[in-house]
Amino acid sequence: MPIGVGVIGAGVVGGGVIETLLAHPTVIKTRSGVDLALVHVAELDQTRLREFTLDGVTVSADAETLIQDPQIQVVCELIGGLEPAKSFILRAIEAGKHVVTANKMLLAYHGPELCKAAIMHNVQLRYEAAVAGGIPIIRSVRDGLAGDRIQALYGILNGTCNYILSRMTEDGHEFGQALHKATELGFAETPPDLDIEGHDTAHKCQILTSLCFTTEVAFDDLYVEGITNITHADVAYAHELGYAIKLLAIIQDRPEGIEARVHPTLVPHDHQLAAVRNEFNAVYVESDVAGATLYYGKGAGRFPTASAVVADVVDIARGSEVPPVPPFVYAGRRPVLDIGSVNSRYYLRLTTLDKPGVLGSVCTILGNHGVSIASCIQQEMSGDEPVPVVLMTHETRESSLRNALEEINRLDFIREATHVIRVLQE
Amino acid sequence: MPIGVGVIGAGVVGGGVIETLLAHPTVIKTRSGVDLALVHVAELDQTRLREFTLDGVTVSADAETLIQDPQIQVVCELIGGLEPAKSFILRAIEAGKHVVTANKMLLAYHGPELCKAAIMHNVQLRYEAAVAGGIPIIRSVRDGLAGDRIQALYGILNGTCNYILSRMTEDGHEFGQALHKATELGFAETPPDLDIEGHDTAHKCQILTSLCFTTEVAFDDLYVEGITNITHADVAYAHELGYAIKLLAIIQDRPEGIEARVHPTLVPHDHQLAAVRNEFNAVYVESDVAGATLYYGKGAGRFPTASAVVADVVDIARGSEVPPVPPFVYAGRRPVLDIGSVNSRYYLRLTTLDKPGVLGSVCTILGNHGVSIASCIQQEMSGDEPVPVVLMTHETRESSLRNALEEINRLDFIREATHVIRVLQE
Repeated sequence: MPIGVGVIGAGVVGGGVIETLLAHPTVIKTRSGVDLALVHVAELDQTRLREFTLDGVTVSADAETLIQDPQIQVVCELIGGLEPAKSFILRAIEAGKHVVTANKMLLAYHGPELCKAAIMHNVQLRYEAAVAGGIPIIRSVRDGLAGDRIQALYGILNGTCNYILSRMTEDGHEFGQALHKATELGFAETPPDLDIEGHDTAHKCQILTSLCFTTEVAFDDLYVEGITNITHADVAYAHELGYAIKLLAIIQDRPEGIEARVHPTLVPHDHQLAAVRNEFNAVYVESDVAGATLYYGKGAGRFPTASAVVADVVDIARGSEVPPVPPFVYAGRRPVLDIGSVNSRYYLRLTTLDKPGVLGSVCTILGNHGVSIASCIQQEMSGDEPVPVVLMTHETRESSLRNALEEINRLDFIREATHVIRVLQE
Repeated sequence: MPIGVGVIGAGVVGGGVIETLLAHPTVIKTRSGVDLALVHVAELDQTRLREFTLDGVTVSADAETLIQDPQIQVVCELIGGLEPAKSFILRAIEAGKHVVTANKMLLAYHGPELCKAAIMHNVQLRYEAAVAGGIPIIRSVRDGLAGDRIQALYGILNGTCNYILSRMTEDGHEFGQALHKATELGFAETPPDLDIEGHDTAHKCQILTSLCFTTEVAFDDLYVEGITNITHADVAYAHELGYAIKLLAIIQDRPEGIEARVHPTLVPHDHQLAAVRNEFNAVYVESDVAGATLYYGKGAGRFPTASAVVADVVDIARGSEVPPVPPFVYAGRRPVLDIGSVNSRYYLRLTTLDKPGVLGSVCTILGNHGVSIASCIQQEMSGDEPVPVVLMTHETRESSLRNALEEINRLDFIREATHVIRVLQE
């Protein structure tokens, strides 16, 4: 008796899932021993279904009909967004269906509530596709490192941002030009704000933080900074200093609490993450038994995401259970540390008039706040135009740096707010 | 009621598993919801147990006692080798115990027999630790890509070989010198033959081939070539041509059959696998839905391997079932293609007297066999010493190249058998 699958939403990801389920029954049966049958598709825009041969598949414009279909054991929610996705998932759970979702935003905000509902109704809620698309990172952290204590995780989790930064690094583009190219190629959403402002990465960061530390994390406690302020000059200076700039989700276990933050980060050229180019994603995990492991692949797109959805459906179909203590249900709640308490090295780009004593004044202020300088790039310039001065600091506490920069940015020869980029600190 | 775990063998890996189980009960309980209890250790050499605090743990010098211990649900076989490991596993299975093993050689030779026994007795046989240690590659291919057709897999699966090749590339060492360093650091086994002759990689290649294609593969059908003939000159020429030399397991699905082979391979510098340095392992998978994914980490050593063993024990403890059609049990058997039918580009290093017409004669013979040249490095040398000539071919069939080389190696100005290294062909 095949396991009945229902798909809500036949857009980019839903369409990929429909296509994979229709094309691959034999592959799935041979490799995993389970029979899956796509029995129902719910989609408001029926024109989207024209490309598929849906013989014997019920099609409806109404998710509720699908949820109540007695032939369905697994419901795939692939419409995205908060509502009506949340209501659909909750009603499916209440109807005793297992649920697979790719909805990172929904999980980031309402993960605990959804997981509790799934436990109460004794069904599975799976979300491999919500983080890093085709990379099986959820099951790698949950199952592959089940006996490990996760110490830190660094993730490139947004393909659009990584594509933009790659173009800025490799082709000398400015941010706007690179964003334009990403939009043309269909990598960037319209509008691209969720990507470039770091929020999409933050949704995934929240899910991974919960998973790694089995603790509840409020999404709003995460520090989030996007890539819109990165200039080609920053990318070029970073390169000269031996670093690539990547938008990272950074998760670290510290005795005082958890670090969970998203911001552009200088990654040393010889680090595995620096080699992750274009629209690819990668997640670097440090755990106490396995050591360092890295997972790399396409983080978005029709088929990479569909691959993860189908893998979850297969897992449910063969009766494998996720932990009875799933990642979103916790004994306690650990605090996320304020960004001010983070320790890091910093890249600073000052824009200053080229006058004698400038560097001295800046270094004095930094020194007064306990921030010491590791290296400096100051090119000789002619004329009265403001010039860039790039400083790399030794490790320091972010709050100290912020206090120093407040003073520095008030100096009369400083002509722009100083650009600050954190350095990867393992 | 905790799940009782027995460990046979307290050597490098067994000791790591014992230490992890003793140190991590709370981490495992919190993250996975299961209670594991180490209840029995069997080890001939009792001095190995001195470092552990084995309160309440039964210790015996005899695996049979452990296998029959009614408190044990999961037996970890960590002694390696073919016998008595095989008998221990079969007796444990017959006694109704689930089995976790890190024994790649045993699986490569007797995987189907062991899996059939496990199915017959309705127990699980898990072997994540047998391939690429701390990298969860078995479950990534089996579960994470469950809905994908695997098209190709390229693996750096032996840390010793990768360490040796890294030293040759980065420090200018010759093979012997690099091997000596690997031995000093404890990376290489004594004797190191299984590693450097490619057999250890081949054991893992066989397991992955079975897993990817759900087909029985005879270990002896794999083409295996180690790294003992690689010279520093090869590494340097390859670098000049834009490649790193890596020992790869290569698995490809072709309409005529399966490619499954192990040999040194030129990997382009911008490929993810080229950046895998020192003792690290990595597996690059191409599948039709997810696209390219890569998995990276430590492939050997006490704790990385222990991490994989414990993850398998956790999986069994929480009742997750591997596919009812496990990788070693097949409907049919697909042929492994002979190495002669492989298509590849080739790196050739000829050792020839520096006489006029040499290159012409060589190219004529290659051309007669349909092998065309893509590029050439010939440095001017003085004196009568033989000189190296490096040729890169376009894609050609291996049997054609072999026929050509047979003729070329008989030419009187050719002073050594021509070195041949295949180029990664995606």
